[in-house]
Amino acid sequence: MKIEVKRKILAKEEAIGEENRRLLREKEVTAFNLIGSPGSGKTSLIESARRLLPEEIRIGVIEGDLASDKDTRRLKKLGLEALQINTGRGCHLSPKMVKEALERFPLDSVDLLIIENVGNLVCPVSFDLGETAKIGLVSVAEGDDKPTKYPLLFLEAELVILNKIDLLPHTDFNREAFYEGLRAINNSVPLIEVSCRTGEGVEDWREWLVDRVIRNP
Amino acid sequence: MKIEVKRKILAKEEAIGEENRRLLREKEVTAFNLIGSPGSGKTSLIESARRLLPEEIRIGVIEGDLASDKDTRRLKKLGLEALQINTGRGCHLSPKMVKEALERFPLDSVDLLIIENVGNLVCPVSFDLGETAKIGLVSVAEGDDKPTKYPLLFLEAELVILNKIDLLPHTDFNREAFYEGLRAINNSVPLIEVSCRTGEGVEDWREWLVDRVIRNP
Repeated sequence: MKIEVKRKILAKEEAIGEENRRLLREKEVTAFNLIGSPGSGKTSLIESARRLLPEEIRIGVIEGDLASDKDTRRLKKLGLEALQINTGRGCHLSPKMVKEALERFPLDSVDLLIIENVGNLVCPVSFDLGETAKIGLVSVAEGDDKPTKYPLLFLEAELVILNKIDLLPHTDFNREAFYEGLRAINNSVPLIEVSCRTGEGVEDWREWLVDRVIRNP
Repeated sequence: MKIEVKRKILAKEEAIGEENRRLLREKEVTAFNLIGSPGSGKTSLIESARRLLPEEIRIGVIEGDLASDKDTRRLKKLGLEALQINTGRGCHLSPKMVKEALERFPLDSVDLLIIENVGNLVCPVSFDLGETAKIGLVSVAEGDDKPTKYPLLFLEAELVILNKIDLLPHTDFNREAFYEGLRAINNSVPLIEVSCRTGEGVEDWREWLVDRVIRNP
């Protein structure tokens, strides 16, 4: 019974994800589902995209958090279209939540939509929100063993970003071990190293975005 | 139907949590459910407890991870009784998983059992594993806004630990904002600041443990 009910719910959610995907395609919006731990720097990464990107890529954000609209206020300050979803006890955004947000979102005025998921390396990975691709974000401060211990995200992501590389001299993070762990899970995913704080590496992030949104939407 | 099934499952899980609690009491074992983000330093905190505690407190660990037994191997190297649970896609330990682990665990040879939950600030909070108390762990690198954005854990924890204070000079972490956010959620929970890496503050952690396990079990 339990499994049957769960299967039905998942099938329904999957169908809603597909509806979202159709709508985004129709509106010619590239959408990334940004997934990372609490404090890995998801909002900072979006802020850096905003600062880096040429004016012709208009960015919008759907912001998922259990509580508070702190990040949405941060992003609106930069002039971004941003819409908050509060999930309460919910550990991930669901296709249905995103569908309701898309209905209220001015899709005609953006080219790129970043969906910042709830901070969590596990649950968000299981739900297809209708995004173009998933981006996995992990910070140096989390340690070099994350791909090995939380393999699901690193399997599914189309891009992996290692943030906070400015902390490398102050931690025991072993770059070689990180690469080895990541490559054992996913041998082909591109990896970009950045520090949103110092700006190091963000040019690679900009290039990837331009390529993905303009040249290869 | 969906809600009814969910309610029945939760009621069953709650009953198993209570069974675990009875067993732990009977065996005179104090058990902490250690909850924090991926890379907040849960295993390091347990390692430091092992190094700090007088021989008369015998520590055992149940270690929850999606995949790998890396942390269990780390802990066994220190001579700790440690048992791995791999949850696969599961985002938290369940009372049933812990019950099965307890059946295999040499409870007569430990005084303190630390249950290291899957790295996640959300899902683990909703499940009572039968622990004596929850400990919430957050690292400086995650930023000062975690209590505001993930309030559930900070509401329920009997102790909050702020780890990686050695990174304070290298981040934009605002201690005052962190305290303010935490106090808005939970005005009475004790907060201990540590760096498991440098050893700063770990004496407070030791004192809290001795008090909680020996003087006030």
